[in-house]
Amino acid sequence: MTLKAIKKEVYEANLELVNRKLVIYTWGNVSAIDRVNNLVVIKPRGIEYEDLCAEDMSVVDMEGNLVEGRLLPSVDLDIHLEIYKNLESVGGIAHTHSTWATAWCQCGRGIPVYGTTHADHFYGEIPCTRQLTKEEVKGEYERNLGRIICDLFKGRDPLAMGAVLTAGHGPFTWGKDAKAAVEHSVILEELAKMAKLSLDIAGGNCPLLPDFMTEKHYTRKYGANSYFYQSK
Amino acid sequence: MTLKAIKKEVYEANLELVNRKLVIYTWGNVSAIDRVNNLVVIKPRGIEYEDLCAEDMSVVDMEGNLVEGRLLPSVDLDIHLEIYKNLESVGGIAHTHSTWATAWCQCGRGIPVYGTTHADHFYGEIPCTRQLTKEEVKGEYERNLGRIICDLFKGRDPLAMGAVLTAGHGPFTWGKDAKAAVEHSVILEELAKMAKLSLDIAGGNCPLLPDFMTEKHYTRKYGANSYFYQSK
Amino acid sequence: MTLKAIKKEVYEANLELVNRKLVIYTWGNVSAIDRVNNLVVIKPRGIEYEDLCAEDMSVVDMEGNLVEGRLLPSVDLDIHLEIYKNLESVGGIAHTHSTWATAWCQCGRGIPVYGTTHADHFYGEIPCTRQLTKEEVKGEYERNLGRIICDLFKGRDPLAMGAVLTAGHGPFTWGKDAKAAVEHSVILEELAKMAKLSLDIAGGNCPLLPDFMTEKHYTRKYGANSYFYQSK
Amino acid sequence: MTLKAIKKEVYEANLELVNRKLVIYTWGNVSAIDRVNNLVVIKPRGIEYEDLCAEDMSVVDMEGNLVEGRLLPSVDLDIHLEIYKNLESVGGIAHTHSTWATAWCQCGRGIPVYGTTHADHFYGEIPCTRQLTKEEVKGEYERNLGRIICDLFKGRDPLAMGAVLTAGHGPFTWGKDAKAAVEHSVILEELAKMAKLSLDIAGGNCPLLPDFMTEKHYTRKYGANSYFYQSK
Repeated sequence: MTLKAIKKEVYEANLELVNRKLVIYTWGNVSAIDRVNNLVVIKPRGIEYEDLCAEDMSVVDMEGNLVEGRLLPSVDLDIHLEIYKNLESVGGIAHTHSTWATAWCQCGRGIPVYGTTHADHFYGEIPCTRQLTKEEVKGEYERNLGRIICDLFKGRDPLAMGAVLTAGHGPFTWGKDAKAAVEHSVILEELAKMAKLSLDIAGGNCPLLPDFMTEKHYTRKYGANSYFYQSK
Repeated sequence: MTLKAIKKEVYEANLELVNRKLVIYTWGNVSAIDRVNNLVVIKPRGIEYEDLCAEDMSVVDMEGNLVEGRLLPSVDLDIHLEIYKNLESVGGIAHTHSTWATAWCQCGRGIPVYGTTHADHFYGEIPCTRQLTKEEVKGEYERNLGRIICDLFKGRDPLAMGAVLTAGHGPFTWGKDAKAAVEHSVILEELAKMAKLSLDIAGGNCPLLPDFMTEKHYTRKYGANSYFYQSK
Repeated sequence: MTLKAIKKEVYEANLELVNRKLVIYTWGNVSAIDRVNNLVVIKPRGIEYEDLCAEDMSVVDMEGNLVEGRLLPSVDLDIHLEIYKNLESVGGIAHTHSTWATAWCQCGRGIPVYGTTHADHFYGEIPCTRQLTKEEVKGEYERNLGRIICDLFKGRDPLAMGAVLTAGHGPFTWGKDAKAAVEHSVILEELAKMAKLSLDIAGGNCPLLPDFMTEKHYTRKYGANSYFYQSK
Repeated sequence: MTLKAIKKEVYEANLELVNRKLVIYTWGNVSAIDRVNNLVVIKPRGIEYEDLCAEDMSVVDMEGNLVEGRLLPSVDLDIHLEIYKNLESVGGIAHTHSTWATAWCQCGRGIPVYGTTHADHFYGEIPCTRQLTKEEVKGEYERNLGRIICDLFKGRDPLAMGAVLTAGHGPFTWGKDAKAAVEHSVILEELAKMAKLSLDIAGGNCPLLPDFMTEKHYTRKYGANSYFYQSK
């Protein structure tokens, strides 16, 4: 994929966040990585989506230096870079402050597996990071946030859990590319809403989906024995 | 009705789920049955609605063999087939993961009759299945889910209760044809929302509609003495 | 106003319920009365809005006899007639199953005055009827529902309280004409939502607006000393 | 900025409230001040937005006398004037009855800082006024409401907290101009919703964002060391 194609993909993925009503104003950003050339394409900081075009996307190297484009990259760049460095199968990342997922973040709680809708897309509870310490915030804030996200994924397959909640902040999602990352943002928001409503109906005590159901629904869609799609 | 007409009906019913915002991505499927020729028409598996046309609908026989079309049928086909085999007055079936109805499913709770809006369309509490056992899930999963749905309807008129919740999964609705099945999905979602809000306002203890009101409202619309429509 | 003009007004008021998302399918009806000729114009029963035009509106006399039009009037006609007979300043009536207002109905609870948004439009708590008895339901059901609504308004100015909730059913609203009735349906739905959310935030114990605030806000908009509009 | 330009800005800001679904009917108003000539431009009272054009905006002096235009200013004018007189950096004010923010008002509760979405825009808890006394309501009601709002902001930078809740009523927001005021209304509504959902998920006991996080996120966007935007 050419850099030009990746810029278009990242631009369209950013717009999709707005169209899906997950983002207002400048509240979100999507990036993608070119693993061959180690370049990251990301939305520029502090500019509304309607004022951007594909060519405006910022291109940076793995140290965050601007390589192409005249606009500074998203202030959340270092979070994205940290994830790309540590989770090597990730090709695209999306960050939003979508309403229902952010509410779970604000409570500092992961989203348990309450149903097959969840299990169809995320293998297990969607984890929530710990709160950063004062020192971590005063230091390299964004990089440290990326670090504690990655700490949660040591030894895990990031493509089987393409979402994380950050305590007191908002969700990050990822996938094989920018489009997949945004799809995970859309699905996460829906799951966050369903989970909250389930909690309410159940009086705070919603039953977990049995593990064998999670296993069944996830493997029905992904992996060697999947049969959810027309072909693998 | 010709097979071509049924395919068109099923295709449009699938789109209606999207238009009514009950389905995103590939989260749902509608089917209809040709009772004369024992053929079932259903959405193909794992394809988004915007990429489909009426001719793409899969046609299968009662054993699930593909009779017409080049695309594999929905992975939920066996659930549909089981329902068609056991509930003979059913002509169309819809399955969604609509937000509010799925929240009730995740709690494993049926939706009680809290008002006449419910009684106008469903005669009694909308039942929720039990959770499947590990053995049932490891075996013929989809068929077993169909079976425990049908177990709930033994000796009942399925057209007087055109909806069921499946524990930890999502709702299935049906009716005399695909269009009626989708209408039941729309109405179920609205009832699920109203019931949840009622529970909240009532502090978890919402009064049930008296049985004589359910009787009145249902028979006002359906059966020998109905007077809700222009003609019977 | 000619009968033709009233039919147009009633037709448009019915459509407005759909446009404001208070009604799906056939769930609602609006009427208006010609007080000079004692004729009531109302939506026909059991027909979806998209299949109707202004000329299709049913015209009945005060005993419910069809005077003009080929379509039977709404099954809820007798409720409307009872209100027109007892509340003489009412010129138009709307009935919906709008989500949030219906949730309050299902709980059998009136909506307390929690804020000035409420006081700007309804003078005091929006009342909820009692549940009908088995005998009242088996007898003249719709007329009896109209009667218990009117019982709540004995000695009250119906234009100062243009809404009522019916237990286990849905809201009725009214005003000087069909358009005003529909505006009250829209506002009631918004108030029902605000009140429910307020209850939740306050942990079930939301403070009532002081009476002097209700008085102030209502009289700021209506009556001899009002100053809310450009002219009285 | 010419008066004509301010009128256009105020008109468009009023429309934006409708487009963002924060206002129905006449439920809201926006104003802006010309600090050079001490003139305030505000929406006329009791007229729906679709019936207005930019030239219809009312222009008043600091005592509320109509200086230009044929339409009386919003009944809430004195609240706006009081704020302009006391909070000198304010250039535009918006008032709505937006659903979720109004629910917090009705509870008489400020919105705590539960997350960075909040800290990105408002520095600290969004305060709620006390309820007015009977005497204050019977007297100069609107001016008194303006006064108790300003009491909360003595010694504070109003541009660091561009929103206030009024007990039993609705929110007011402000900023450097009318557009900024409306943006704060949009963001406040989103925060009010997130905060309410967080409260529910947390069972009424949502953790506050640590102060060092509020500090970090606010100063990342505003002030001498900010780096959120392309340039300062």
